Amino acid sequence: MQALGTHLLLELRECKAGILQDLDRVRDIMVSAAREAKATVVEVAFHEFNPFGISGMVIIAESHLSIHTWPEYNYAAVDIFTCGDIIIPQEAAHYLIREFGSKSPSMGEMNRGMRSFDGAKLPHKVETEEYASAEKLQMVL
Amino acid sequence: MQALGTHLLLELRECKAGILQDLDRVRDIMVSAAREAKATVVEVAFHEFNPFGISGMVIIAESHLSIHTWPEYNYAAVDIFTCGDIIIPQEAAHYLIREFGSKSPSMGEMNRGMRSFDGAKLPHKVETEEYASAEKLQMVL
Repeated sequence: MQALGTHLLLELRECKAGILQDLDRVRDIMVSAAREAKATVVEVAFHEFNPFGISGMVIIAESHLSIHTWPEYNYAAVDIFTCGDIIIPQEAAHYLIREFGSKSPSMGEMNRGMRSFDGAKLPHKVETEEYASAEKLQMVL
Repeated sequence: MQALGTHLLLELRECKAGILQDLDRVRDIMVSAAREAKATVVEVAFHEFNPFGISGMVIIAESHLSIHTWPEYNYAAVDIFTCGDIIIPQEAAHYLIREFGSKSPSMGEMNRGMRSFDGAKLPHKVETEEYASAEKLQMVL
């Protein structure tokens, strides 16, 4: 079995007081986390809600990072969804735990897009030639 | 136990041929799915990758929807992350399964931000007065 994507689900509890309501800080940390994992940042969109709470997305060439903060509980839910073998999403996760100062973090990992054919390359951004062979493989499923 | 957020993880397999590489169509369906769940759309960001594959995010006032498509496998990974009791994320999920014509979908549901105090209101966008009582509750944890 091979997966098309790796999805880390981070529960960042007991974060540093105040940090989760600082829009610029949260955005900077999330973008830096993407770079920490060697991802290519494509687009960044962050919003602050009234009276507090930040939602943000970092679209990367290799999928995305997202965050939703509940400053009133010093809690943030972070998702790191990546594809490809080059970037290391765990690097981004450890960076986020450190930067947000989470004293009680937990992390789950899920494989997304499980494929049952072994031995085949499963790149996201495949070349034209590889696409042809991927189509052939798909017929075998 | 109460959760701050509900997170649906959708595996959309065997989608309609061609639909997952149509940027306008994918964006329209995702935005409509958010509205189907009665969510308030805040920002929409979609990207098409070379030679194919679309990544997109719909930030809603109640968190987000995301999609990553692998047209070469007729597969899309969708996440629907919502908070609050008003919107119904399952409505968005069923809409997406139908619109993308997924013949073999699966869905997982996770609670995000579990809190151990029972009976307390856990709104994301709390009023000033409620915030004061939420802070008090936090002290009890």
